[in-house]
Amino acid sequence: MAKEKKLVEAITSMDEDFARWYTDVCVKADLIGYTSVKGCMAIKPAGFAIWENIKNELDRRFKETGVQNVYMPMFIPESLLEKEKDHVEGFAPEVAWVTRGGLEELPERLCVRPTSETLFCDFYAKDIHSHRDLPRLYNQWCSVVRWEKTTRPFLRSREFLWQEGHTAHATAKEAEERTVMMLNVYASFLEDVLAIPVIKGRKTDKEKFAGAEETYTVEALMHDGKALQSGTSHNFGDGFARAFGVQYTDQNNQLQYVYQTSWGMTTRVIGALIMVHGDNSGLVLPPRIAPTQVMIVPIRQNAEGVMEKAREILDALKKAGVRAAIDDSEKSPGWKFSEQEMRGIPLRIEIGPKDIEKEQAVLVRRDNRGKTVAAIGDLSGTVPALLEDIQKSLFEKAKAHRDSHTYDAHDYAEFKEIADTKPGFIRAMWCGDQACEDKIKEDLGVTSRCIPNEQERISDVCVCCGKPAKKMVYWGKAY
Amino acid sequence: MAKEKKLVEAITSMDEDFARWYTDVCVKADLIGYTSVKGCMAIKPAGFAIWENIKNELDRRFKETGVQNVYMPMFIPESLLEKEKDHVEGFAPEVAWVTRGGLEELPERLCVRPTSETLFCDFYAKDIHSHRDLPRLYNQWCSVVRWEKTTRPFLRSREFLWQEGHTAHATAKEAEERTVMMLNVYASFLEDVLAIPVIKGRKTDKEKFAGAEETYTVEALMHDGKALQSGTSHNFGDGFARAFGVQYTDQNNQLQYVYQTSWGMTTRVIGALIMVHGDNSGLVLPPRIAPTQVMIVPIRQNAEGVMEKAREILDALKKAGVRAAIDDSEKSPGWKFSEQEMRGIPLRIEIGPKDIEKEQAVLVRRDNRGKTVAAIGDLSGTVPALLEDIQKSLFEKAKAHRDSHTYDAHDYAEFKEIADTKPGFIRAMWCGDQACEDKIKEDLGVTSRCIPNEQERISDVCVCCGKPAKKMVYWGKAY
Repeated sequence: MAKEKKLVEAITSMDEDFARWYTDVCVKADLIGYTSVKGCMAIKPAGFAIWENIKNELDRRFKETGVQNVYMPMFIPESLLEKEKDHVEGFAPEVAWVTRGGLEELPERLCVRPTSETLFCDFYAKDIHSHRDLPRLYNQWCSVVRWEKTTRPFLRSREFLWQEGHTAHATAKEAEERTVMMLNVYASFLEDVLAIPVIKGRKTDKEKFAGAEETYTVEALMHDGKALQSGTSHNFGDGFARAFGVQYTDQNNQLQYVYQTSWGMTTRVIGALIMVHGDNSGLVLPPRIAPTQVMIVPIRQNAEGVMEKAREILDALKKAGVRAAIDDSEKSPGWKFSEQEMRGIPLRIEIGPKDIEKEQAVLVRRDNRGKTVAAIGDLSGTVPALLEDIQKSLFEKAKAHRDSHTYDAHDYAEFKEIADTKPGFIRAMWCGDQACEDKIKEDLGVTSRCIPNEQERISDVCVCCGKPAKKMVYWGKAY
Repeated sequence: MAKEKKLVEAITSMDEDFARWYTDVCVKADLIGYTSVKGCMAIKPAGFAIWENIKNELDRRFKETGVQNVYMPMFIPESLLEKEKDHVEGFAPEVAWVTRGGLEELPERLCVRPTSETLFCDFYAKDIHSHRDLPRLYNQWCSVVRWEKTTRPFLRSREFLWQEGHTAHATAKEAEERTVMMLNVYASFLEDVLAIPVIKGRKTDKEKFAGAEETYTVEALMHDGKALQSGTSHNFGDGFARAFGVQYTDQNNQLQYVYQTSWGMTTRVIGALIMVHGDNSGLVLPPRIAPTQVMIVPIRQNAEGVMEKAREILDALKKAGVRAAIDDSEKSPGWKFSEQEMRGIPLRIEIGPKDIEKEQAVLVRRDNRGKTVAAIGDLSGTVPALLEDIQKSLFEKAKAHRDSHTYDAHDYAEFKEIADTKPGFIRAMWCGDQACEDKIKEDLGVTSRCIPNEQERISDVCVCCGKPAKKMVYWGKAY
């Protein structure tokens, strides 16, 4: 029974060592496995099923806004990567290079895509001719490679899965609208499906994407008070179009450059799910993203009628649109409870001979361990309602945690004190100079997370230099 | 109107130049675009939507047999690739090598996966402990790279999309059953969904997968009489397990090696779709795989009530589960007809003021251009029935074509004559010696496609050497 033991063994407490707790959950909830490929992980069925749900849900939302899926090559010839100056500077130091194909040295080396702006631009330059071809709203689901030195499951690995949307528009206004639209898709997905509250805002010039005019971001706060950038949307203006010659003929038969955007969300958000909702018993999955929402655990499953009743409940739940399953393995109910808690299954239903006698079942929530007893005949109503309540509670709990870990700093001394002692978001005014941003990072180890859309005037002067303040900024330590 | 013109321009006739006809269809049906990355194509929305449907349909069928999706790294360290002797010999000459990561030379070069047996074995060696962990039924959807010298859209490109299933079992019997089961999944998918009739069989030793004990294949015949291997399923026995040390503890507490399989289907099948069903007007898509099954073309769309009626029909069809759309662009109906024919949309519905008066619509099939008139009120019944009939007709037509292009050769002279003059499958007896297979390939330019499950005794002796025959074999020129 070595395998079972491992699962119910206590994991490292999150208060004791958050980083180790995180890794323990990744491994013991069976989300990932380590591989012989340095810096790369294997995503196991329980982890990949979460990604499949994320993908399906996001893909549906993208398509509702007119986006179409395509597939571009995974290789970028060096000369193509170099066409946009800022972009190559940002990415060249961290790419993997293919230098041999088959038995021969390549005449030009190819990098494995770290992101595909250059490939889409090269494609659009051939594909777009007239204003009737616009907008182009393309997206691809793929993996990308960035040669990170230190890696952690989901949060930072040399290869990761993501989607990257790349659009081309006739006007700057349309491109800006699309950039904001996709940020809003990410924000509502994170909040409504993953139950992760986010701050929407813009990155400072220092933190924006290599080659972008403007980078929008959604920032979330993890349980340990660190921030996680959870999705970004970039407005490129016509910078890439000029570098790659992406032009179209307008209604007046004039050649014009297109305006472009790109936007991405990655397997990192699985890391966010773990670090926002997880607890010392393991993973906690919001019902809307959980591959299995309800696990039915038969008690004394060999007793007459128990499995039949469990299957009856399963059928009723499936009919009600609930993703349910029965754990009919030969383990004890206690083992099963612990396993399912580790795996984050939102709700379990216990059903044994005594329950059947009373025509009832015991429902136990993963999030707060709340127990209720419900009539078996009512489960197809009770259970979906309870799942919705769990979903809502998880969001409220995460939001309360974030709000209670968001601090306002009015001057540098207060800023320093918060940064040193209180993990969380720090809101403080900024003059707009990168010098102050650099100093804050160097002195206090926090970076600007975003200039939030919802501004508040905390004080009139920059928290760092004392000059007149331009913007309120969210600061924090980040993953 | 340059863009429209291009679409309805005549493509190369398939009888004149089949290879050029094929490429014309790929480009003019908007399936692919050329890129600056040699040997790699861009899959455009119309092409990728077909792949999405293939993927969804296959994935559902895999999951019904208990398969789970995972994701393994895209890189294979050279030492890992080298662990199984036959496998490395088969693949090493055609892989792409990453030799630099970031700014540094790698201590060990990594190949971009050409297939992932080695990664799965490495993973299973750590992941499988006991007989309770078996079977493992994993699959991944990804892209792979093989450094081909000459490439063609979908049929042969340096990077292609596919799924690769990798399973581990306690017994040789179970592994064999799984190998056959997945071949049957491919066969029924190809026949029932893509309307492509297939021959199921085994590869000869010469043609089997590098490292496999047995390779099963489904072979299809293209319109030009060439064969296309459309899916393969491999039984590895315990060969890889021994090379990688994949062992489990059995019920008697003894260490045993696992038995493994792998099976794959690729974007090649889109090439098969084109070459089996296409005609001189372009692509012809079977309804079950077509992203858009029905295109509604309003005639005199600005006349009162026409668009309203078109939308009414659209709603009724969608409710009936039909993937329908309206072409309300400002092109003439004639242009629209040609465009949709090029794109292979199975059925079009023409609806104009005169039709509306008579409460009818005109239905035109893509496959045989058959025209019927149907009452508007009945469309939610008429259309699905018609789509089913198109699906069936396409399969029957392809089967009739294949059967009429399958020839029996009783002796070498006849074999040679058929190979020289009649494109198609050739059935002939074989003694089982690779020498004969080699000679046939060299002399006649045909290869063994498979040893079909359904054997017939055409003669008693090998068509090549005259020794006693062991098996009837399908031979042919292949893509």
